[in-house]
Amino acid sequence: MSTICAIATAQGGAIGLIRVSGPKAISITDGIFKGKTSLENAKPYTLNYGHIIDSENIIDEVLVSVFHAPNSYTGEDSIEISCHGSTYILQHIIQMLIDKGCRMANPGEYTQRAFMNGKMDLSQAEAVADIIASNSASAHRVAMTQLKGGFSHKLRELRDKLLELSSYLELELDFSDHEELEFVDRIKLIELGHLIEFEILHLSNSFSTGNAIKQGIPVAIIGAPNVGKSTLLNLLLQEDKAIVSNIQGTTRDVIEDTITINGILFRFIDTAGIRKTEDEIEKIGISRSLNAAERAQIILLMTEPGVPYPEINVRDDQKVINIINKSDSFQALGGLGLDWLQSELIKAVPAINEDSVLVTNIRHKQSLDLALQDIRRAIESLHQQLSGDIIAEDLRQCIHNLSTILGDNITSNTIL
Amino acid sequence: MSTICAIATAQGGAIGLIRVSGPKAISITDGIFKGKTSLENAKPYTLNYGHIIDSENIIDEVLVSVFHAPNSYTGEDSIEISCHGSTYILQHIIQMLIDKGCRMANPGEYTQRAFMNGKMDLSQAEAVADIIASNSASAHRVAMTQLKGGFSHKLRELRDKLLELSSYLELELDFSDHEELEFVDRIKLIELGHLIEFEILHLSNSFSTGNAIKQGIPVAIIGAPNVGKSTLLNLLLQEDKAIVSNIQGTTRDVIEDTITINGILFRFIDTAGIRKTEDEIEKIGISRSLNAAERAQIILLMTEPGVPYPEINVRDDQKVINIINKSDSFQALGGLGLDWLQSELIKAVPAINEDSVLVTNIRHKQSLDLALQDIRRAIESLHQQLSGDIIAEDLRQCIHNLSTILGDNITSNTIL
Repeated sequence: MSTICAIATAQGGAIGLIRVSGPKAISITDGIFKGKTSLENAKPYTLNYGHIIDSENIIDEVLVSVFHAPNSYTGEDSIEISCHGSTYILQHIIQMLIDKGCRMANPGEYTQRAFMNGKMDLSQAEAVADIIASNSASAHRVAMTQLKGGFSHKLRELRDKLLELSSYLELELDFSDHEELEFVDRIKLIELGHLIEFEILHLSNSFSTGNAIKQGIPVAIIGAPNVGKSTLLNLLLQEDKAIVSNIQGTTRDVIEDTITINGILFRFIDTAGIRKTEDEIEKIGISRSLNAAERAQIILLMTEPGVPYPEINVRDDQKVINIINKSDSFQALGGLGLDWLQSELIKAVPAINEDSVLVTNIRHKQSLDLALQDIRRAIESLHQQLSGDIIAEDLRQCIHNLSTILGDNITSNTIL
Repeated sequence: MSTICAIATAQGGAIGLIRVSGPKAISITDGIFKGKTSLENAKPYTLNYGHIIDSENIIDEVLVSVFHAPNSYTGEDSIEISCHGSTYILQHIIQMLIDKGCRMANPGEYTQRAFMNGKMDLSQAEAVADIIASNSASAHRVAMTQLKGGFSHKLRELRDKLLELSSYLELELDFSDHEELEFVDRIKLIELGHLIEFEILHLSNSFSTGNAIKQGIPVAIIGAPNVGKSTLLNLLLQEDKAIVSNIQGTTRDVIEDTITINGILFRFIDTAGIRKTEDEIEKIGISRSLNAAERAQIILLMTEPGVPYPEINVRDDQKVINIINKSDSFQALGGLGLDWLQSELIKAVPAINEDSVLVTNIRHKQSLDLALQDIRRAIESLHQQLSGDIIAEDLRQCIHNLSTILGDNITSNTIL
């Protein structure tokens, strides 16, 4: 196993951090470090003050942390060098480590090693990137639940239930000459199958919420021209300081802005006004607005007094908030009206419990959907009184697809 | 003394670091941390694994370093929280620390506290920012010499000599009835005065080199139009991968580019071609070129075979490298010619020993120049046989001006 090194902090801070991990992490770092004692003799979980020395020249004053396998992030012997955040110093130290036998870590390789050394399963390893990227309280909470193993725990529970189902089938095969027994068992098995199916479906469906929380809940602002859509967006943006980004939409006329309200990231989509028109260019804009409405989880439907709301198709899983401009609810925006709108937005977000497990990763969603097909096929076979052998194969496949999420039966190289 | 906190790393890395310093650093962090043991009971210089908890919610998995006064960077009780580099997590932890009684640190306040607690003098404290900003080996070495106290040591030696001179003056006052003694002493005193004057002058003069190393040695490329000035610059840039920045000059037509050659940062100034012209606009460009030549430490004077070099004034402290384009030396650039030019550039840089103390800070330069006036006034008074009282006052002022650099006799608030 090679010893890897990398700069773990972004460029431009007061402090920079270099991580070294692998069998030679401690001895290699010892070769460039001069402190009171050698790092080989340092106790694990200690900070060691000293200097990085390159042939007599002091490169920097540093604090070196020492970790012994398996009690480190990667599960290997590890070193963290905390130095001044100078690009020159950081690159110079990395070059010295490479000269002494380290190689540069690939992106994500620290977490990959943590996974390979059993420090975390694959879904937890994937959560690390989400944790680092999290920019709202709710996105952070979802990623932290995954990192702490909430999702993994659910998957293991499901596997246990599938194994239980399989063991009943074996029992049934053992007693296959007792026809009555089989009949009773099959009803029990179908019930258990539906329970598993429901739970997998629930996890799979949580992807739309989980993904929306990660990317921002899409909110389309839809209305006739000049009813105050952009004014409304600007009011929302002014009121809330936590503007995360300005994203130019893929289409030229749809501007997206994200805002955090009560720790939830919303992605507002400002659209062209909708009205009946013969203008071909305007028609394109309107068709884009309707597309935006289709992608949204929440639709802010705006109009003026006496003007009917624009007619759009609303799906069951979409929430609509009606706003009449120049009415009390909107005219007062910035005061009570804005509070009202923000609380309506929060209410429109699917409820998330502290412990809710939400799927945010498309790879997990795909594996869950495959597992769902497997369990449904197994249930169908149970109904059709097919042989236990055939059903057992579907259950094995279902377990395999759930295990893929945890990375239990794959090599990590294929994923990370 | 308040307890301060700040994010010490730049945004966007895998790992983020929060520093807490002050009398309540450990107890406040204990209030948001949950590990095997409390931080109050943790030994100094240990890393403590645990979680940052906000009312039951896990905010992050962290490693907390504990330092006890006076054995920390600031000299105070200190904590470093190493967490995932998520902006949300970093800001959330900072908010929790503030809620528990910390206040946000001002820029430079950690180093300011280190200075106030006697961990470093003012010139060392000022070197910290230079260390972090250093982007070439030579700039790093100059800043590191200052941080390690090389400059401070020189200043203390000078102070000792000034005190020695003062003590001779006191001796002279005590024996002022012995006229012969006074006469002998004055010659010795003048010699000692000149020695001090020379060393202060030497330090003050090092500013042009020190500052050039920090900002990049200014090199002006001067020549008639179309002799290949920009081609030369492009060749230099292509050859060397370590292009640090593109700086648009203050004037529209002068473009500056910095390149590191052999660990030394050069700041190339590409200028308009110089020739006799009646065109008013071209005249302005040429006058700018001549200005650039004046600011440069090195002038690359370019011409073509048979064409005389442009006439420019060269100061004693400027080096000129003559380049004839289409001659062997330049035509081969990219091969041996470029090597030749690079080695000429390196040779043209004032020699810097490993231990050279170079002044890089304009505040230090100004204090040195004031001290220089003081010592010169004292020497003049010694020549004029003025009373020891008057001379002693000049020496006190000289010591004061040197001490200002070390921050010995000022409150740190006025500087940092």
